[in-house]
Amino acid sequence: MEQKRILCVGNAAWDQIFVLETLPTGAGKYFSHAYSESGGGPAGTASVAISRLGGKAKLWSRIGDDGAGDRIAAELTEYGVELPAISRLKGVASSLAGIWVDAGGERIIVNYLDPKFPQNADWLPLGEVGEFDSALADIRWPAGAEAVLRAAAAAGVPSVLDGDRAPGASILATLAPLAAHAVFSEGGLAMLTGEMNPEAGLLAAGSLPGVNPYVTLGDRGCLWLDKGRIRAFPAFKVEAADTTGAGDVFHGAFALALAEGMEIVEGLRFASGAAALKCTRPGGRAGIPDRAALDAFLKRNPA
Amino acid sequence: MEQKRILCVGNAAWDQIFVLETLPTGAGKYFSHAYSESGGGPAGTASVAISRLGGKAKLWSRIGDDGAGDRIAAELTEYGVELPAISRLKGVASSLAGIWVDAGGERIIVNYLDPKFPQNADWLPLGEVGEFDSALADIRWPAGAEAVLRAAAAAGVPSVLDGDRAPGASILATLAPLAAHAVFSEGGLAMLTGEMNPEAGLLAAGSLPGVNPYVTLGDRGCLWLDKGRIRAFPAFKVEAADTTGAGDVFHGAFALALAEGMEIVEGLRFASGAAALKCTRPGGRAGIPDRAALDAFLKRNPA
Repeated sequence: MEQKRILCVGNAAWDQIFVLETLPTGAGKYFSHAYSESGGGPAGTASVAISRLGGKAKLWSRIGDDGAGDRIAAELTEYGVELPAISRLKGVASSLAGIWVDAGGERIIVNYLDPKFPQNADWLPLGEVGEFDSALADIRWPAGAEAVLRAAAAAGVPSVLDGDRAPGASILATLAPLAAHAVFSEGGLAMLTGEMNPEAGLLAAGSLPGVNPYVTLGDRGCLWLDKGRIRAFPAFKVEAADTTGAGDVFHGAFALALAEGMEIVEGLRFASGAAALKCTRPGGRAGIPDRAALDAFLKRNPA
Repeated sequence: MEQKRILCVGNAAWDQIFVLETLPTGAGKYFSHAYSESGGGPAGTASVAISRLGGKAKLWSRIGDDGAGDRIAAELTEYGVELPAISRLKGVASSLAGIWVDAGGERIIVNYLDPKFPQNADWLPLGEVGEFDSALADIRWPAGAEAVLRAAAAAGVPSVLDGDRAPGASILATLAPLAAHAVFSEGGLAMLTGEMNPEAGLLAAGSLPGVNPYVTLGDRGCLWLDKGRIRAFPAFKVEAADTTGAGDVFHGAFALALAEGMEIVEGLRFASGAAALKCTRPGGRAGIPDRAALDAFLKRNPA
């Protein structure tokens, strides 16, 4: 099959990861025995997953012209992600995430976004959007996501929103109706709908005009709305070693599946398998499977 | 007066500082609006304070041969701290601290120390210790602190222990009797003695053979034991803008005061003034006053 092109828009960050026995519980000093750095950010990691799984990913992002930006760009390029020059911005600091992980994999993530980042998206070459086979947007750059999702809808390009918890619920309310597929995290869905229960949240989101909602629930699989009816796709049972980035991998793989013309259930199976395999391996990006590994996994684990 | 030479031994780190509205309360995602990096570590920041206040500081530390190590070394050198080649180690990662600060200045600090750091200190040129006018050790490299404090005692060089919370109470129990002046943080004193009350902790520490204890209490000043009697030195009243590094500045200034032959009360006044002035200015290191500023401050604020 011809290689499909997927446009990703949103955040690419540099993650600073401290491993501790237990997470800090309040002000004070704590000790870590392991530290690592790697690229992160929802759209950034999704673009890497697409590339690893055989798609051609292009990333529109806001990356500073500092040392962290150089590291972010070099790693994405190494993974085969196309990072156009418009993604590098002068005079701003690159996005960073301070991540503290405990022995059981529980995480505190602090996302730093430079307030000097341009909020507008009028500098994006939106005329190119129609050239892609699918598009994916995260919620970290609302104007960029809105512009790309609108352009994708106008051009008939299928689109996926990574609907994670945003700095404000209105961001989710604006973006969700613009995406062909609004794939929420549990927290994102609760933020949008005020419903703590995922089933209730899904029904509430589905009642909003134009919203076609999904919710990912980690090892409890995912739910989506099919003609007003809740359907469930169970997660593959795996021994989880590191769940970092699993959600981003799911979104990227799902966008690739849509680009390849898979049906919804087939696409969710593809995305769930990619995320599950990622969880069996250490590293948010180093642990992303390639297409051969995913195909073999899906063959070993028939529906 | 001839410039005094102070030997500092212990941790020099690279701090990654995220500012948040409120500190994280558990696993999840949080957003930060400001980020900065600078050198840190107790002995490292104390050596910078000594240099800023007119002393000649030399730092024996364990700094990796990585990018963070280059940044740590460059900043120390720029501040006039003498960093001998023995402080740079091949094949290990430099110390890092992930620091999250809230709007009120409350901090969570996660210290990362590479487990591959050599624990032994037999590679330190201990024969040089006698050439210094005072010595200062933190608790982050117990063998290094022990070697320097023993050599200082043997050579008649006055010494200060920065007795902060350690990964184990036995570290404090070993080091405290070796220092001429054991200056504890509130948490360090509680860890050594099991006493939550600073006065009770001070008496308990003073009852241990060879321990000459002090405890610093931030804006509540400091206490010390003078022939079995508790004495107090109140903190200078200042408008605190940023308390980062204030304790390290206190220890460095006190070691310099001892090197210059000041009496205890005069030395505590000097150290308290340096720490108080530091608190009025932003930045753990950028906010450290120089000698002229401290002298003027002490003149304006007579005992």
